[in-house]
Amino acid sequence: MKKIAHIGIAVSDLDAMIPFYRDQLGLSFQGTEEVESEGVRVGFFKIGESAIELLEPLNETSPIAKYIEKKGEGIHHVALDVDNIQKRLDHLKENGIPLIHEEPKMGAHESQVAFLHPKAANGVLFELCEQKQEE
Amino acid sequence: MKKIAHIGIAVSDLDAMIPFYRDQLGLSFQGTEEVESEGVRVGFFKIGESAIELLEPLNETSPIAKYIEKKGEGIHHVALDVDNIQKRLDHLKENGIPLIHEEPKMGAHESQVAFLHPKAANGVLFELCEQKQEE
Repeated sequence: MKKIAHIGIAVSDLDAMIPFYRDQLGLSFQGTEEVESEGVRVGFFKIGESAIELLEPLNETSPIAKYIEKKGEGIHHVALDVDNIQKRLDHLKENGIPLIHEEPKMGAHESQVAFLHPKAANGVLFELCEQKQEE
Repeated sequence: MKKIAHIGIAVSDLDAMIPFYRDQLGLSFQGTEEVESEGVRVGFFKIGESAIELLEPLNETSPIAKYIEKKGEGIHHVALDVDNIQKRLDHLKENGIPLIHEEPKMGAHESQVAFLHPKAANGVLFELCEQKQEE
């Protein structure tokens, strides 16, 4: 694992939380992006080599809407940066680690992403993330 | 803010979780340390410039024991590395951000640490952390 790519935080109202993260914590706000496939609007904040992503549900069927309904706002997942996501997933599968995605799918910023099942880590939801190669 | 210092994860059985983080996620295991003032035994895993810390309660009065009883195992807090923790705390206090500690206290590895109140970030518990200066 190369680094923590980001921490994903479920919020009900993204715009309302921007001042806290930008002005009080002093993180560098990088803008927002809608990821329709995930049903979320994402706010990006840079911190060192990592990011904090605020995840606001776009609709009631969004996984983030369901998360907030069940558990309330809070940390939803931790994403780890990897070099070869398919090789990692194959390795985990061979070792019997429960996965939500056995193959990566497209995430924000054209990255490839896949989630482990939270029971793999006693309730912590880990995402693996392979950044798009710069050309 | 300089970087994510660590993500603190509450676990019931630290030793049982080491193989997952070390062998499956492939993080570098750095050993354990008891922090009696916090009532926790901590397992450290390095990832990039950050760390993942597994927090196991030492006794039933530990804040981590209470957290697990109330919410189950999972991500307990996110620690952010700062240069001048007292200045940061004063700034937050002036801006009306609710704090658990208005002055830093001693944390693991002789760092100075302080927690914001989780209501400051809609349920996310942030820690500020100033590392000991190397001499």
